[in-house]
Amino acid sequence: MEPRISVITLGVTDLARSFRFYRDGLGLPPTRKPEDGIVFFQTSGVTLALFPYGELADDVGPGWNLPHSRFTGITLAHNVREREDVDRLLAQAEAAGAQVIKPARDTEWGGCSGYFTDLDGYLWEVAWGAFEFHEDGALQVP
Amino acid sequence: MEPRISVITLGVTDLARSFRFYRDGLGLPPTRKPEDGIVFFQTSGVTLALFPYGELADDVGPGWNLPHSRFTGITLAHNVREREDVDRLLAQAEAAGAQVIKPARDTEWGGCSGYFTDLDGYLWEVAWGAFEFHEDGALQVP
Repeated sequence: MEPRISVITLGVTDLARSFRFYRDGLGLPPTRKPEDGIVFFQTSGVTLALFPYGELADDVGPGWNLPHSRFTGITLAHNVREREDVDRLLAQAEAAGAQVIKPARDTEWGGCSGYFTDLDGYLWEVAWGAFEFHEDGALQVP
Repeated sequence: MEPRISVITLGVTDLARSFRFYRDGLGLPPTRKPEDGIVFFQTSGVTLALFPYGELADDVGPGWNLPHSRFTGITLAHNVREREDVDRLLAQAEAAGAQVIKPARDTEWGGCSGYFTDLDGYLWEVAWGAFEFHEDGALQVP
C-alpha cells in the first residue's frame, strides 16, 4: 500500500446545503456541483468528497444505512499557520452554520485548538502549533 | 481556509494492535510508536493519526466518549494504480485482521472497488479506475 489516502467521503443529509457550507462557508475549492450527485473538493494530497448519506451506505452494502452516532470515533483536523487563525476559522465555520463544540484553547502539546461540527455533525478540529508545514501545506509530523 | 486537511484521526481501542495493523499489515510508514501515546503515519498530503478512543473523545469534550455506530457516515478511500491491486490489497488487509465487507467488483462509474473495515470497524474503500493520479500520488478529480 503506497502511503496515500486518496479520498475522505462524508455522507451528508443534504448535498446542496453541505456543498454551500464547504464551498461558501469554509472556502474549499470544488470540482463538481451537487447536480452531479457527488461533489469533490481538491485539497492538498487528499480529496474531500460529499455524497448523499444513504447512497454512501448503499455503496458499502445492504444493511449499512444506519444513523451515525454523535461521536463517530473519527476527527478531521485543519491546521492553521497562525494562532489567531484558530478563533477566526471557528467563527467563520459558525457563521456558516457549524456548531462550535470547543472554543480555541491551549493544548498540553503546546499548541492551541478547538472543534466544530459540520452540518451533519462531523467533527473538525482547528489546530495551531507544534508542527511545521511542508511547502505544499502538508503537516510535518515528527 | 486553505484547501487542506491536515490530519485524519481514528480513535482506536488498542493503540499497539492498530499500530501493527497499519504499519505491518498495510505497510504505512509511522513516525512515532505506541509508547508515545499517539501514532502518526505520513501519507501524501494528509497525516493519519491513531489515538486511544477515549482520549480522542475527551479531547473533544465531556460527554463525547460514546460508542461509535457501525456506519460512521465516513469512509476513507485508497486508490490503487492497477485493477488487480484492489483484490491484492483487500486480501492483504484481511490477512492483517481486517474484515472484507465488499469484495472487489465493477462500479457504475467504470472502475472497480471493494471495502474493508479495520480493527475498530472503520471503513476503507480500495478503488481503481476513473481518476488519474498527480505525480505525488494525489488523485485528480475532474
